[in-house]
Amino acid sequence: MDTAEKVEPAVSFETSPDRYHHWKLTFDGPVATVSMDVQEDAGLSPDYRLKLNSYDLGVDIELADVIQRLRFEHPEVRAVVITSLKERVFCAGANIFMLRGSTHAWKVNFCKFTNETRLAIEDASAHSGIKFLAALNGICAGGGYELALACDEILLVDDGNSAVSLPETPLLGVLPGTGGLTRVVDKRKVRRDLADFFSTVAEGIKGKRAVEWRLVDAVYPTSQFKDRVARRARELAGLSDRPADAQGQGVTLGPLNPDVTGTAVQYSSVRLEFDRERRMATLTVLGPDEGEPATPAAIREAGDRFWPLRVFREIDDALLRLRLHEPLLGTVVVKTLGDPARVLAVDQTLLAHADHWLVREIVHFAKRTLKRMDLTSRSFFALIEPGSCFAGTLFELALASDRSYMLDDPDRPTAIALSPMNGGPLKMSNALTRLETRFLGEPARVAELLADNGALDGLEAHEAGLVTFAPDELDWDDEVRLAVESRAAFSPDALTGMEANLRFAGPETMETKIFGRLTAWQNWIFQRPNAAGEKGALTAYGTQSRPEFDFRRT
Amino acid sequence: MDTAEKVEPAVSFETSPDRYHHWKLTFDGPVATVSMDVQEDAGLSPDYRLKLNSYDLGVDIELADVIQRLRFEHPEVRAVVITSLKERVFCAGANIFMLRGSTHAWKVNFCKFTNETRLAIEDASAHSGIKFLAALNGICAGGGYELALACDEILLVDDGNSAVSLPETPLLGVLPGTGGLTRVVDKRKVRRDLADFFSTVAEGIKGKRAVEWRLVDAVYPTSQFKDRVARRARELAGLSDRPADAQGQGVTLGPLNPDVTGTAVQYSSVRLEFDRERRMATLTVLGPDEGEPATPAAIREAGDRFWPLRVFREIDDALLRLRLHEPLLGTVVVKTLGDPARVLAVDQTLLAHADHWLVREIVHFAKRTLKRMDLTSRSFFALIEPGSCFAGTLFELALASDRSYMLDDPDRPTAIALSPMNGGPLKMSNALTRLETRFLGEPARVAELLADNGALDGLEAHEAGLVTFAPDELDWDDEVRLAVESRAAFSPDALTGMEANLRFAGPETMETKIFGRLTAWQNWIFQRPNAAGEKGALTAYGTQSRPEFDFRRT
Repeated sequence: MDTAEKVEPAVSFETSPDRYHHWKLTFDGPVATVSMDVQEDAGLSPDYRLKLNSYDLGVDIELADVIQRLRFEHPEVRAVVITSLKERVFCAGANIFMLRGSTHAWKVNFCKFTNETRLAIEDASAHSGIKFLAALNGICAGGGYELALACDEILLVDDGNSAVSLPETPLLGVLPGTGGLTRVVDKRKVRRDLADFFSTVAEGIKGKRAVEWRLVDAVYPTSQFKDRVARRARELAGLSDRPADAQGQGVTLGPLNPDVTGTAVQYSSVRLEFDRERRMATLTVLGPDEGEPATPAAIREAGDRFWPLRVFREIDDALLRLRLHEPLLGTVVVKTLGDPARVLAVDQTLLAHADHWLVREIVHFAKRTLKRMDLTSRSFFALIEPGSCFAGTLFELALASDRSYMLDDPDRPTAIALSPMNGGPLKMSNALTRLETRFLGEPARVAELLADNGALDGLEAHEAGLVTFAPDELDWDDEVRLAVESRAAFSPDALTGMEANLRFAGPETMETKIFGRLTAWQNWIFQRPNAAGEKGALTAYGTQSRPEFDFRRT
Repeated sequence: MDTAEKVEPAVSFETSPDRYHHWKLTFDGPVATVSMDVQEDAGLSPDYRLKLNSYDLGVDIELADVIQRLRFEHPEVRAVVITSLKERVFCAGANIFMLRGSTHAWKVNFCKFTNETRLAIEDASAHSGIKFLAALNGICAGGGYELALACDEILLVDDGNSAVSLPETPLLGVLPGTGGLTRVVDKRKVRRDLADFFSTVAEGIKGKRAVEWRLVDAVYPTSQFKDRVARRARELAGLSDRPADAQGQGVTLGPLNPDVTGTAVQYSSVRLEFDRERRMATLTVLGPDEGEPATPAAIREAGDRFWPLRVFREIDDALLRLRLHEPLLGTVVVKTLGDPARVLAVDQTLLAHADHWLVREIVHFAKRTLKRMDLTSRSFFALIEPGSCFAGTLFELALASDRSYMLDDPDRPTAIALSPMNGGPLKMSNALTRLETRFLGEPARVAELLADNGALDGLEAHEAGLVTFAPDELDWDDEVRLAVESRAAFSPDALTGMEANLRFAGPETMETKIFGRLTAWQNWIFQRPNAAGEKGALTAYGTQSRPEFDFRRT
């Protein structure tokens, strides 16, 4: 099942509404309706058909694109209804035949990306003034219910048949993999014993009981359903803080058009280069040019060419390509090139206009991209060299790295600098800033460092605890080479687990719980013979044969 | 590597100082010294030798016994030095050849038990007035360092050679499995990038750097080491709140002497019965007799015969036997028998004398046993029937269960009741009470229920949300039978993951992080071919061959 020979479909993470296969968007003033209408034969692979609004990675890439565009291109949207165009079916969840035919790594990557998409919905609700209403017009199972759980409210049609369910345990021998269990007990605070029962009945829970158990917020008979959904969506739209004069103010997200070769992906300001022999990649980020816009009007005018929006879109795409297309490149060297002063100037612009809807979107998008990096199962080493611009927002790339090496050479000055962008707007999944997480043992140091916001050279940065090592010119080459080489020799699985545990010190949130606890268990189960083995439940699903379990509890 | 044929050694979780193979205890006033002196040829299996103070489950069972007896039998002890009697070696960690030769389930159970032992040390420090000092007189690697991390302070000898290390990633391709990574960044708050480096250098970190990186609290040259340790231990003893007149007041923990047959383990007040055909066990707990002691003097007099101490020791032993010896019994039906009023009377005694050292120990031990139940990978269903005594402390058994069924039959009255013991003393690993966790969605209800502490019948208990289902006489048999039967048919791995996620809603703590995040990743890695496969690192360790990795990152 997990053979090196298995060929996974080529995937692009870029799409746009004119190319969607599976989703329809309609707009009615402040309310957008996002309707799932999965095209059975338009899956990423011809090996399965996407029946009953079941989904594969391609469907979720479109959904992620929808959410992103609603934030940037449609500032007039204040509430989103997520529903389905299929009769009596909302969504049957992740496609089982796709899961069954996938490698372990694909399943893990698929679940991670869909987690990130659900969290992007919750991020838009928390920070962007867009409330989400799940309008479940039919059966809603597994990942379908997880999509509903990501919304602020869930309305279910009461037609005697439609139910919500997490049938993974009884039917497939796996966990609801995209955050389901965590959202049930932590977000919706369903009682644990009711959640236990719910998660073991394949047919799910419907009607009043679903409301009483907090699984949905309300049920309405078919005759009233549409009206109630529309009414509640308008009410939710009324809660938004998005601008009143937003109509037509959106910024179009154009295609990234990277230049892709066998050895590199080159974007306008980001370059991802592959060194397959050493199993490493180099991610180089270019700082801004002179004259970046400094007012909301000019930023809107620049649109997707405004440096921070452009560069984080490119980093995001590069990370996703790396995850899916380059599994063998275990270490990523992170570099920057440019003028730190210009990065700090852009930071100042972002901070000065933090309340403007578009600036707010850009900052939250940078935040989400950095979280994507935190959650990427690769070793990141930041190399801070002469000519680099690890300042403010870009210094987060060094803080997000597992280690950083900064040259200490008086003859070749190298500097880093903090900005208030390191002090709050770019929080990690654990709800702390990267500085706070870094200095859990010396919390007072965070404020000291942020107050003293001058440039620091290698020795100063090392002394301040902001970089891991600061070798001098003599040691630099050997030390960096050795670090990269020895990393490449370790078990990739041990590194994945180690990084997942060291990166998120401090408090846990629903988000870190989903990625830490739930994902890890899901990954464990995904490779257990009871799920993925010859006679496992995932393998047996939809065939004539029944699963055979090794019933020993572990 | 994980074959059904593999025979694991028979293990008893009971031991006593006169039977220890691996630890020496000495006492000097308020300071106890616990010295590791592992007997190479006294491992649980003849397949490996416990060289260099490496350990297997048997060594850890003795350590757990040491900690337990220091709490109950030695109330005069206020500080504990953990050190080694081997020259220049503190502890080399878990024995690799033991790990390599173990089934997946054994490894998982071993790590869980050692986690619980380390947490018992931290519990004694937090609640029992016993501070722990790790005196590292030599190399301290892997699980050895994890034992040190569980102590309040770590002193390391500075002899140019002795270092602390977590060499699992570089040497074995697995994670430091007993909480290591979590304690490094969360408890000791070592910076994540330094922790990353530390966890990848097999030789570890020594001397001043170990102090600067917060890996140890101090280093001293060999000539000063013993004196410094003794001095610091006396200082730590001075912080204790244990009673001044404690000498000779300890209570001896006698053997449990259960009657063990092929179908049941019968203790004085606990019975664990096996139904192998249905793959279930029944755990029946007897309430107290009349006339349980009600004053500290009488409790001390009763010693290990005092009902709450006796019954929780028996439950604890039953759970451990179940975990290790009965892997096929996936569901545990939990019952009680007795007079609820008597349980509540004992609760009142425990609460009235909560400040007395022995009562405090008993309550914290009940708490730890209930946590052991929360962390046991079996489905627990509480059956609340006529004649049962699910009241106060014993109602925690129902709250700790995945579901509870309570008979609703006016002709056969059945009652549950809460007591203040449900309101604080028996907190879960997430630092909430089981009631608080249960009612995360309705926090006000907890205080209401605790205020109204009368008995509740089935309907009332169901209405109050305290039981999952309350079938009447007509439905009872079918509903319970069906629940047990359908549970037995599910994938045991999916159930393990599901329960691990549903049981711990709410905040995460270092403890839940260790069991949730870290354990799950460890379990995942333990069954990856890169660790446990034919050419995996764990398999290759100590042989001539080098591991061969599939370098794809997941």
